[in-house]
Amino acid sequence: MPADLPDFAAVNAAAARLAGRIRRTPVWNSDEFDRRAGRRVWFKCENLQRGGAFKIRGALNAALQIALPGQGGPKRLITHSSGNHGAALALAARDLGFECVVVMPENSAAPKFDAVVAAGARVVRCAPGIAAREAALALLQTEAPAAIVHPYDDARVIAGQGTAALELLQEQPDLGLLLAPVGGGGLIGGTALAARGLRGSACRVVAAEPMAADDAARSFRSGRRESAGTPATIADGLRGALGVRNFELLQQHVDDVLTVTESDIVAAMRIVLQDLKLLVEPSAAVPVAALLAHAARLPPGDTGIILSGGNVDLGACPFLGAAAC
Amino acid sequence: MPADLPDFAAVNAAAARLAGRIRRTPVWNSDEFDRRAGRRVWFKCENLQRGGAFKIRGALNAALQIALPGQGGPKRLITHSSGNHGAALALAARDLGFECVVVMPENSAAPKFDAVVAAGARVVRCAPGIAAREAALALLQTEAPAAIVHPYDDARVIAGQGTAALELLQEQPDLGLLLAPVGGGGLIGGTALAARGLRGSACRVVAAEPMAADDAARSFRSGRRESAGTPATIADGLRGALGVRNFELLQQHVDDVLTVTESDIVAAMRIVLQDLKLLVEPSAAVPVAALLAHAARLPPGDTGIILSGGNVDLGACPFLGAAAC
Repeated sequence: MPADLPDFAAVNAAAARLAGRIRRTPVWNSDEFDRRAGRRVWFKCENLQRGGAFKIRGALNAALQIALPGQGGPKRLITHSSGNHGAALALAARDLGFECVVVMPENSAAPKFDAVVAAGARVVRCAPGIAAREAALALLQTEAPAAIVHPYDDARVIAGQGTAALELLQEQPDLGLLLAPVGGGGLIGGTALAARGLRGSACRVVAAEPMAADDAARSFRSGRRESAGTPATIADGLRGALGVRNFELLQQHVDDVLTVTESDIVAAMRIVLQDLKLLVEPSAAVPVAALLAHAARLPPGDTGIILSGGNVDLGACPFLGAAAC
Repeated sequence: MPADLPDFAAVNAAAARLAGRIRRTPVWNSDEFDRRAGRRVWFKCENLQRGGAFKIRGALNAALQIALPGQGGPKRLITHSSGNHGAALALAARDLGFECVVVMPENSAAPKFDAVVAAGARVVRCAPGIAAREAALALLQTEAPAAIVHPYDDARVIAGQGTAALELLQEQPDLGLLLAPVGGGGLIGGTALAARGLRGSACRVVAAEPMAADDAARSFRSGRRESAGTPATIADGLRGALGVRNFELLQQHVDDVLTVTESDIVAAMRIVLQDLKLLVEPSAAVPVAALLAHAARLPPGDTGIILSGGNVDLGACPFLGAAAC
């Protein structure tokens, strides 16, 4: 077990550190969705967060604990990311005066490259696959003094991600169930710490995952970290393999891991758009799909869902065509 | 000039009356949109309001001033509406214990019928056109004692609609410009009352309208209420003709009326979806389009926009196809 597993105190410390630097996103519900789900559901709208996803929470919480370049710290922050974490670290670096370089697999979506560059970071492209990403990152470290901020297997990142659930539970303290997506496990790890810390076992924590990228579900059941393979899911934020620290937190604090089909995910994106008027990315629709598909298996009571992000490539989305505009 | 023109005090009274009965919708912005517009823009998210539009404000403010059936009041509330006002009045009636009947032109969009019925009202279909609507409403009045709540040419409705701008200006008191769509003129009338009351002439109020339904722009310039004709615009909420009271308020308190093309409207819907992650209906995108198309003509400064609604027929939207789900 890693020595630096984060705890509830780390989530609270992250919340204090992040205050005023990120958005307090709305906690919202819709009568239409409540009728559909047969229960009251509160959505934490991290699709409205800075950078369009919760990722700024973890990235900034980590960056704020690294000494600044003028105070003996490294000149740059580096990471590898196929998506939102890269843009989030770029924003965090710009806020604090670091340079930022993000290693991105060359098959990342075009808007994800654009977001990283727009936030002022340099992109280094590499071949797809974790080996190429790690190699490119190692090469970067020889260029200039740099601190690595891993997308999810980092205690500071996990604690930062937990602040979304912390805010949700502050506004809706009586939730009996909290759902979040799991990919690498940064969000679900922090979410579980926040829920356990504030509510003990009174609020169940359930992770949701695409069936096509079910390494967390398999790992949860087998008790060891299973291989992710090369998942083919529309939920691009959930293709990563579960991290070491993240698996530990999943085992300790998460009550269940549910999986959903690709068509469930697309249908849930559309339902959120229709009922809540919110655009969410496929990864964010995964826990919504899990709630609708597995209602009978889930504990009753008011339910919270972390809508993790809203960065959708409008041209490539299965129901958002490029026609007419 | 109608004797019962509402004033700023009526907007404040409406806010007190509505407290706890409607949603306090978020006032939100996006760095991406601000960069695009070249100014700070605050959006009042009435697409997240009960019923998916600001209309509940006016409908409920009117209904709350009608004696209840058990206290000598009429048994039912009736109106004609091709859209959101019908559903809003149905919700208001249900809240208070009235029956509700809504006359709807038979060419209304299917989801609009569904929304009225889902809110518990009866729908009476009629031929399109204002004459058929008025005739059907007159017939209804012979059925049972009923109070008419007009969609926009009603002092109580106008005052209620003004509470959206009131809330926006409470949260962002330094706006130099406020934009809202104009159709029948309920929203722009109330918005102008709120802005003038709180900020005098320090906050300019500009109405936005589809070029294809430009009766308000023509009326504003000619100084008399011009005919609307039969507007062919995607902005279905803005096809109505400017009301008598609404025209009066437009002349007294609105600084300008701008028009936009149909393609500007669709592009603006898409921009709001991309930058703000919010689904808005075409009518709500009209002031966004006006800001982007007429930037040079508009006074500088922080800007507020009322996002009037989010009721989109996902199957019929020009860039939201039914494919894949």
